[in-house]
Amino acid sequence: MSAFRVPRRIRFSDCDPAGIVFYPQYFVMFNGVLEDWVDGPLGIGFADLVSRRRIGLPTVRLEADFRAISRFGDDVVMSLEVERLGGRSLTLALRCESGAGELRMAMRQVVVTTSLETHQAVDVPADLRAAVQSLAG
Amino acid sequence: MSAFRVPRRIRFSDCDPAGIVFYPQYFVMFNGVLEDWVDGPLGIGFADLVSRRRIGLPTVRLEADFRAISRFGDDVVMSLEVERLGGRSLTLALRCESGAGELRMAMRQVVVTTSLETHQAVDVPADLRAAVQSLAG
Amino acid sequence: MSAFRVPRRIRFSDCDPAGIVFYPQYFVMFNGVLEDWVDGPLGIGFADLVSRRRIGLPTVRLEADFRAISRFGDDVVMSLEVERLGGRSLTLALRCESGAGELRMAMRQVVVTTSLETHQAVDVPADLRAAVQSLAG
Amino acid sequence: MSAFRVPRRIRFSDCDPAGIVFYPQYFVMFNGVLEDWVDGPLGIGFADLVSRRRIGLPTVRLEADFRAISRFGDDVVMSLEVERLGGRSLTLALRCESGAGELRMAMRQVVVTTSLETHQAVDVPADLRAAVQSLAG
Repeated sequence: MSAFRVPRRIRFSDCDPAGIVFYPQYFVMFNGVLEDWVDGPLGIGFADLVSRRRIGLPTVRLEADFRAISRFGDDVVMSLEVERLGGRSLTLALRCESGAGELRMAMRQVVVTTSLETHQAVDVPADLRAAVQSLAG
Repeated sequence: MSAFRVPRRIRFSDCDPAGIVFYPQYFVMFNGVLEDWVDGPLGIGFADLVSRRRIGLPTVRLEADFRAISRFGDDVVMSLEVERLGGRSLTLALRCESGAGELRMAMRQVVVTTSLETHQAVDVPADLRAAVQSLAG
Repeated sequence: MSAFRVPRRIRFSDCDPAGIVFYPQYFVMFNGVLEDWVDGPLGIGFADLVSRRRIGLPTVRLEADFRAISRFGDDVVMSLEVERLGGRSLTLALRCESGAGELRMAMRQVVVTTSLETHQAVDVPADLRAAVQSLAG
Repeated sequence: MSAFRVPRRIRFSDCDPAGIVFYPQYFVMFNGVLEDWVDGPLGIGFADLVSRRRIGLPTVRLEADFRAISRFGDDVVMSLEVERLGGRSLTLALRCESGAGELRMAMRQVVVTTSLETHQAVDVPADLRAAVQSLAG
């Protein structure tokens, strides 16, 4: 699968008094990329998945490396790839790079599919599974 | 060193449409614990360190495990311990537990001391080093 | 009624690249004061109100004046007073002052009590009304 | 001048446990619209203005009315118009509407141009003034 890529400009509200991205904000930005991926290439509808079907995608594990700073106003590219599709989880590889391709931040994130009624893990829904497999070609 | 502990109630603004902590918010909460630790037990003055001395503490690496959900209104305890004091870095072990001691989330975080003029790593300032060593007793 | 007052240190995560409070963050901070007031002096339990009783307190109107900047590390006092208790609404006067009493920001905010099932206004619950009236002495 | 319009999907991270936009997040979203407007139609470069030229645009006054809720997943249109161009300030009219044109939230916001060295008001920079006047045609 090729990576799903989203260009983004670093905003004033992303940055801290040091003038660089406040690191928790990377996770907010990547959460937006995940939404865009589910809405876009997967064609599932993220809000429908959560609000109507009551399926959540909480994070159970992440590892992140911050390699270079991103400053307010920088144009970056956020990307998402599926490393592994499990029975009840997805392992994602996420990257933020400068427009010139310099790696700013990379993370591996494991999300599980859960019932938002019970907050227990459930099988990855069939349509989500099929959509991920279809992208993987 | 015993852990530095901060009780905290999970707020409305910490939570997402699933009614649980939006995971990036854990990092915002832990950043507050780091500030409280530098201000309190270390006696260094976090704002003074950043704003006047122009020393930053950016994160270069983190690993986080999310073990159980925290809901809006939960009373939790956030804790911080130093795992390793390096020449230009600190490795921190951070935990969020329920009042009853159930582990909600744990992370290991490596922060480096940087010049906010150059964003390059610098030696851990002598007073910060001494304060950390003093706590380690 | 005397004002409900909450001291607070301005945190790194409250501030923007100008080193001062990012103005939307004042509203997040005041939302925390509202929670503390409902939990504390009112004795109602904010999370219980929202999560179990499914009563919301959305804002329908606010007016805010920003008089002086608050910097990272400042110790401020946030305060809340009830200006008017309506049938389905409360009008609140909120202020942020420096420790020395300099006004930083003031706002008037009208919140309505709603059903979180329908998002329609409902009467202020009897226990909330009684608690507010009791404080007003 | 016709309004500057930006379509936006309401994200998971914009919403609260009630499943609707957490009201402070409207101000974060509008701050992004202001950035886009300065970067785009005005052609000034918001990050350059702030980071290099050290001119800030802090808010000194705002009035906001919240007329209808926006839910997670809604497609809205954010808009910005200049109501008044003063010597050291701009008065902006900002609106968030559903795709179908239902008003969700409207605000009037007064921002002043300041020196980020002194945090004192300064004249609206000539290029910014000319760009605003040019749009007003």
